[in-house]
Amino acid sequence: MSLEETLRKIRPLECSTEAAAQRRLDSLTKPQGSLGRLEELASRICSIQGVVPPQLGRKLLFVFAADHGIAQEGVSAYPKEVTAQMTYNFLKGGAAINVLARHCEVDVEVVDMGVDHDFQPLDGLRSYKIKRGTDNFSRGPAMTRAEALRSVETGIGLAEEAASRKAFLLGAGDMGIGNTSSAAAILCALTELSARDAAGRGTGVGPAAWEKKIATIEKGLGLNQPDPNDPMDVLAKIGGFEIGAIAGLMLGAAACRIPMVLDGYICSSAALLACRLHPAVKEILFASHLSAEAGHRSMLDELGLAPLFDLNMRLGEGTGACLAMGLIEASVKIMREMATFESAGVAEKTQ
Amino acid sequence: MSLEETLRKIRPLECSTEAAAQRRLDSLTKPQGSLGRLEELASRICSIQGVVPPQLGRKLLFVFAADHGIAQEGVSAYPKEVTAQMTYNFLKGGAAINVLARHCEVDVEVVDMGVDHDFQPLDGLRSYKIKRGTDNFSRGPAMTRAEALRSVETGIGLAEEAASRKAFLLGAGDMGIGNTSSAAAILCALTELSARDAAGRGTGVGPAAWEKKIATIEKGLGLNQPDPNDPMDVLAKIGGFEIGAIAGLMLGAAACRIPMVLDGYICSSAALLACRLHPAVKEILFASHLSAEAGHRSMLDELGLAPLFDLNMRLGEGTGACLAMGLIEASVKIMREMATFESAGVAEKTQ
Repeated sequence: MSLEETLRKIRPLECSTEAAAQRRLDSLTKPQGSLGRLEELASRICSIQGVVPPQLGRKLLFVFAADHGIAQEGVSAYPKEVTAQMTYNFLKGGAAINVLARHCEVDVEVVDMGVDHDFQPLDGLRSYKIKRGTDNFSRGPAMTRAEALRSVETGIGLAEEAASRKAFLLGAGDMGIGNTSSAAAILCALTELSARDAAGRGTGVGPAAWEKKIATIEKGLGLNQPDPNDPMDVLAKIGGFEIGAIAGLMLGAAACRIPMVLDGYICSSAALLACRLHPAVKEILFASHLSAEAGHRSMLDELGLAPLFDLNMRLGEGTGACLAMGLIEASVKIMREMATFESAGVAEKTQ
Repeated sequence: MSLEETLRKIRPLECSTEAAAQRRLDSLTKPQGSLGRLEELASRICSIQGVVPPQLGRKLLFVFAADHGIAQEGVSAYPKEVTAQMTYNFLKGGAAINVLARHCEVDVEVVDMGVDHDFQPLDGLRSYKIKRGTDNFSRGPAMTRAEALRSVETGIGLAEEAASRKAFLLGAGDMGIGNTSSAAAILCALTELSARDAAGRGTGVGPAAWEKKIATIEKGLGLNQPDPNDPMDVLAKIGGFEIGAIAGLMLGAAACRIPMVLDGYICSSAALLACRLHPAVKEILFASHLSAEAGHRSMLDELGLAPLFDLNMRLGEGTGACLAMGLIEASVKIMREMATFESAGVAEKTQ
C-alpha cells in the first residue's frame, strides 16, 4: 500500500465498544477498577479491534537495523561496525531482545533497512536495504525524499503482511549506531526543543562527546532547515532508514487496526513523524516504558502517551516494547478468561 | 522449623557475588547499565543464591485466604461470604491471579488459613485452618499468641517445602474480606502513622464506610495497645491468619535463601512484621507494584523497597507479585542467555 493510500485508509476509532468493554470488566470477579491500567489496556484493545472481548493472536516485533552517516562525527560511544555485528547477534539469538522475546513469546523479525555491510543470504534476515547507511545530516540531507518514502512504505508493507499473518500486537525495535542523534534532531525539528534538552547520552558518551553531539545536531538542523509542517521532509533531511520504516509500520498498523507498542527513544521519534502524518495513528499506539535517555519524556508528552513502566532502561532493540507486549496480552487474557460474579457464584458489592 | 530456629538461621547477605555479577552484566552485548533495573534484579538474585549466573526454577505463589472478625463492623464493600466464594474461584481457575499466573507461568497454591466455611476435601486446597476467622479486633484481640505463632510457622513450613521443591522465586497473595483494615492497623501499630493516613478504600467503600473503618481501627488500637516492639503481639492483637502466614513465608524464604516478591497492601503489612522480627529478611524481598491503596507508599518507604511498576492496581490475590515474578525471571534469563561481546564478536565501547 502506498503512503497516500494508507493515510486515506486510517480512521479515528469509534467508541462503539467502550460501554460493552466496561460492562464486561465490571462483571468479572474483582472490585471494579481494581486492575487499574490493565483494564484500560484491555478496553482500548477492544476499541481498536472493534470487538468485546478482544481476540488474541501472534505478537510480532520487527527489529529494524540501519547505519547513520552522522556516526562519522564521533557522536556515539561505539564504532559504526557494531550495527552490522549486532544484526548478526540478533540473527543468532544472543541479544537482549532475543532473550526477552523468547521470555514473552514474541516473534522477532530482523530487517536490514540500510546497514553498511553486505550480508550473505542468511536465514532470518529480511533485506530491504535502501543503501549502505544514510548520508551525514550535519553536512547535507540524510537521504532523498524518494528514499524516505521507500523506508516508510517498507514499514507499511510489513504491517500489511503482519495483518495477513493474524498478528494481534505489533512492536518495533531499532539498531543503528548514531541513531539517538537522528532521533534527537527529529524531536528538535518537530517541537522546537533545543538540542541540549533533546539529546541524551545515547549508548553512553562522555561529556565532551555529548557536547559534540549537541553541536552536530544544531549544525545539521541549521544546514538542512527541515520543514516542521512536512514530516517526510524532516525524515529525509535527518534520517534514518529504520526510523522511516518504524513510522511506516505504525501507519500501516493504524490502517489495518493492529495495536502497536512503542519501544524507547528511537521508536518514539518515529511515532512523532507518524502522528504528524496522521493524528489518528496515536489511537493504536501504546507507550511501553519511559526510557532513561534524556528527551524521551518530552517525546511521550508530545505524543500524549503515558508509559506503562520505568525501569531505567535505555537499550532500544525493542526491549521495552517486548515487555509491554507481554503485559498487554495479560490484560486481554484478563478480559477473556476471568470468571464473572454470576458464573463463579460470588456475591457483589453491598456498599 | 520453629520461628525461633528460623530467626537463628537468617543471615545478612554477603556481597561476595556482586563484583562477579557486575563483570558478567558488563560483558553482555549491550551498553553498560542499559537494562537499568533488570540488571539490579539479576545481580540481587545472584547475591541471594550466592552464584553467578543465578539458577532458574519454579515460580511458586501461595494465595492465603482467611476471614477477619473486623468485617462484622461493616468496614468492607463486600459481604464476608466472598472470602469463601473467591477461594472456590481460585480453585476453579477463574480469578485474576489464576489468569495472570497462567500467563506468567507461575504455579499457584491456595491455602486456607482460616476461612469461615467448611470446605469439602477438594483438589488443590491446602488446609491449615487455624479457626473460622479471627476475632473482631475492635472488641478484643484478634487471636491468641499461640494462634499467631501457628500462622507464622505455617508460612515457614511452606517456604521449607518450596525450597525442597526447587522453587527459584516465591510470591504470596491474600484473600480476606476486611483485611485492609487489619493491614492498616498493623501499619499504624508499627509506625505511629494515623489510621486516616494508613487506611484506604480497600475493595471500594464509600466515604461513610471509610470513616467507619478509620474509627474502628482507632478503637481496636486503643483497646488492644499492641506493643510496637513485639511484632508477634501486633499480629496476635490485630490479625490476620493469612498475614501471619505471609510473614512466615518471608521468614522461611530468608532462612532458605529464596527470593520472594511482595504483592500489594496486605503482603506489605506482613513484610513489616517479618522485617521487625528479623531485619535481614528485607534483603530477599522484592517490591512488585505500588498499589493504588492509600498507605501502601508508606509501607514501602518503611520497608525501604522501591516498587518495579505502578499500574494503579489494588486487587491483591498476588496479582502484582505474579507480574513482577515474570519480570524478575526475565532479568535472570538476560544474565544467563545473552551473548558476550567476545562470543558474539561485537566491538566494545571506544569513548
